Amino acid sequence: MSISAPLSRRALPGHQIVLGETDKLRLDSGVDFGPFTLAYQTYGALNANKSNAVLVCHALTGDQYVADDVHPITGKEGWWRAIVGPGKIIDTEKYFVICTNVIGGCLGSTGPKETNPETGKPWGLDFPVITIADMVRAQAMLIDHMGIDTLFAVIGGSMGGMQVLEWCKSFPDRVFAAAPIATSYRHSAQNIAFHEVGRQAVMADPDWCGGNYLLEGKKPARGLAVARMTAHITYLSEPVLHRKFGRKLQNRGAITYSFDHDFQVESYLRHQGKSFVDRFDANSYLYITRAMDYFDLSVEFDGRLAEAFRGSNTRFCIISFSSDWCFTTAESRRLAHALNAASCNVSCVEIESDKGHDAFLLDEPDFHMVLSGFIQGAAEARGLN
Amino acid sequence: MSISAPLSRRALPGHQIVLGETDKLRLDSGVDFGPFTLAYQTYGALNANKSNAVLVCHALTGDQYVADDVHPITGKEGWWRAIVGPGKIIDTEKYFVICTNVIGGCLGSTGPKETNPETGKPWGLDFPVITIADMVRAQAMLIDHMGIDTLFAVIGGSMGGMQVLEWCKSFPDRVFAAAPIATSYRHSAQNIAFHEVGRQAVMADPDWCGGNYLLEGKKPARGLAVARMTAHITYLSEPVLHRKFGRKLQNRGAITYSFDHDFQVESYLRHQGKSFVDRFDANSYLYITRAMDYFDLSVEFDGRLAEAFRGSNTRFCIISFSSDWCFTTAESRRLAHALNAASCNVSCVEIESDKGHDAFLLDEPDFHMVLSGFIQGAAEARGLN
Repeated sequence: MSISAPLSRRALPGHQIVLGETDKLRLDSGVDFGPFTLAYQTYGALNANKSNAVLVCHALTGDQYVADDVHPITGKEGWWRAIVGPGKIIDTEKYFVICTNVIGGCLGSTGPKETNPETGKPWGLDFPVITIADMVRAQAMLIDHMGIDTLFAVIGGSMGGMQVLEWCKSFPDRVFAAAPIATSYRHSAQNIAFHEVGRQAVMADPDWCGGNYLLEGKKPARGLAVARMTAHITYLSEPVLHRKFGRKLQNRGAITYSFDHDFQVESYLRHQGKSFVDRFDANSYLYITRAMDYFDLSVEFDGRLAEAFRGSNTRFCIISFSSDWCFTTAESRRLAHALNAASCNVSCVEIESDKGHDAFLLDEPDFHMVLSGFIQGAAEARGLN
Repeated sequence: MSISAPLSRRALPGHQIVLGETDKLRLDSGVDFGPFTLAYQTYGALNANKSNAVLVCHALTGDQYVADDVHPITGKEGWWRAIVGPGKIIDTEKYFVICTNVIGGCLGSTGPKETNPETGKPWGLDFPVITIADMVRAQAMLIDHMGIDTLFAVIGGSMGGMQVLEWCKSFPDRVFAAAPIATSYRHSAQNIAFHEVGRQAVMADPDWCGGNYLLEGKKPARGLAVARMTAHITYLSEPVLHRKFGRKLQNRGAITYSFDHDFQVESYLRHQGKSFVDRFDANSYLYITRAMDYFDLSVEFDGRLAEAFRGSNTRFCIISFSSDWCFTTAESRRLAHALNAASCNVSCVEIESDKGHDAFLLDEPDFHMVLSGFIQGAAEARGLN
């Protein structure tokens, strides 16, 4: 089976490249996919010997606008400006930073909301199910196109960290330094369960129309909002919810004995659900959560995770956050043990924080210090200073 | 405002009593409610001096059939047969056990699915918002009717534990021994957040019909299933999900690259959602979750929880489970500290278990040993041996 992907895209700022025109992308599902579009941003300049490229991988609901001043849809600044930019840890005056919208995404890369050239209609559920490895192979085709042999660093948090690990496993000679952050080598049963709830919420919305909502001129806004609300709770922590909201009431002196949003935390969650629907495609949410669920680097080695990294020369810095119950430090330790068992160069740091999984996106000085030290040390070893 | 409640009920086994015909039930919301029906079960016999009564309080989705051989709807045995029955910890050959369906419930007590006598239609969202204290006051009216001054024991887990604590605060002289299990004196921000997601899932289902689904001949089955699935994850724990399901596939040798239930945990969750819808009313789910959200015993004392129990002669046994992240041991400890500060008779035990919040319903030998010891000690002190 070979599928040709659409070339037309809505007008979004940044780069778009058509890949897989001759050599298609062989998906894990067996589908030969292409041509397909990859939307991406770059920041800084590639040096003469092409040794200063940093690939940043985004999380489930992230995108390629990692370090932009103004996001084209939300109007806010890029999602990792705390880390990436001029003078930042990933210094765009020193490094050439690349960030792609994953395939299956909804910000310009080929995904279920784009047009299926075979039918002239949006892909919907005819879009092939993709995996983290598929996302990474698509990125590798872009890196090939750029003529970059070895990436100085690949970094990312959450699903971005899964891509980092997949890069290290699939292309060990092409990654000099890797920072998988707030992530795991496999999606846990609990995380699969929460994703399944989110998908069921989307699919239960009649406006999802069996995946054909774009054709029907509808939008499963309520279902997607519920999915986002559930997920959002998992990205936080009980301590941070208690600290930020506790049982504080929303603009009222007393409870109303109604189903109104009496509590601030309810109001906050409803806002999170609503604003997400404005910027994300429901089918992309299904496909990308599925890709995360399927992720398990150890499975092809019958659970012997170390085999995934045997012989790797990449230097790893694994970072977790103490209150992250989505991707726990225990998972990061298992990864570190496997890398040690494979005689890899690895450090593993747990950052003390009450901010839960989302801590990797936030202003966390200890985290930034650790990442900064790792990047600087790697740059010296790479002769980039 | 005074509301009269319906008297007709579907045919369910067990007792039903009409209360509040002359003296209405004053709800926390200010509504004078009644007459209303309380459905309840009893097991064993009340002794001559009426000193052997044990009130068991059920959790969010529980009911009065605590120790029946066969539940009239599910066909399974009563939900706490591990604890309550002949020769069990709460020995029905020794104690007179009472368990009521809470008001707002859907198993015979007056709740949103019953007929509003003022309109002749199901209450729906015209049902008044109720609180844990309202549930407890309704139970107290039944206990009055039975001529019981002091309950030998009040026990319950989760929302049942909230009722236990409310009993001890509102009727300190009427509770000899109290066992609040896997519970808290207030609902946390995270728990409110998960409940809000569940309510939004129900309300997002077009078949909810603004709460009037019974009138419309519909049922918000998909929304309620999503709500239940989310809640069900919170009742378990990551370790137990890992142990029971891990990443095991459901009746297949490999992933299907689809949105089918590839993983056992997905299949299990879908089943949980579906079977719940068959036995529970969606509006009851909204009302009872709201009652839990509103629960905070400390609020009328400006946070000084100890004041809620000052002067109490009740003996308390607080039990929590190590992997319960819904109602954590930390919350139980705060409760124990407050009881100590109020010079109460209190013991506080954390049971080691990987089964999460639901452990209180399961076969947990250490838990049973602790509860058994507490009940036996209290029985001796009460002269019941």
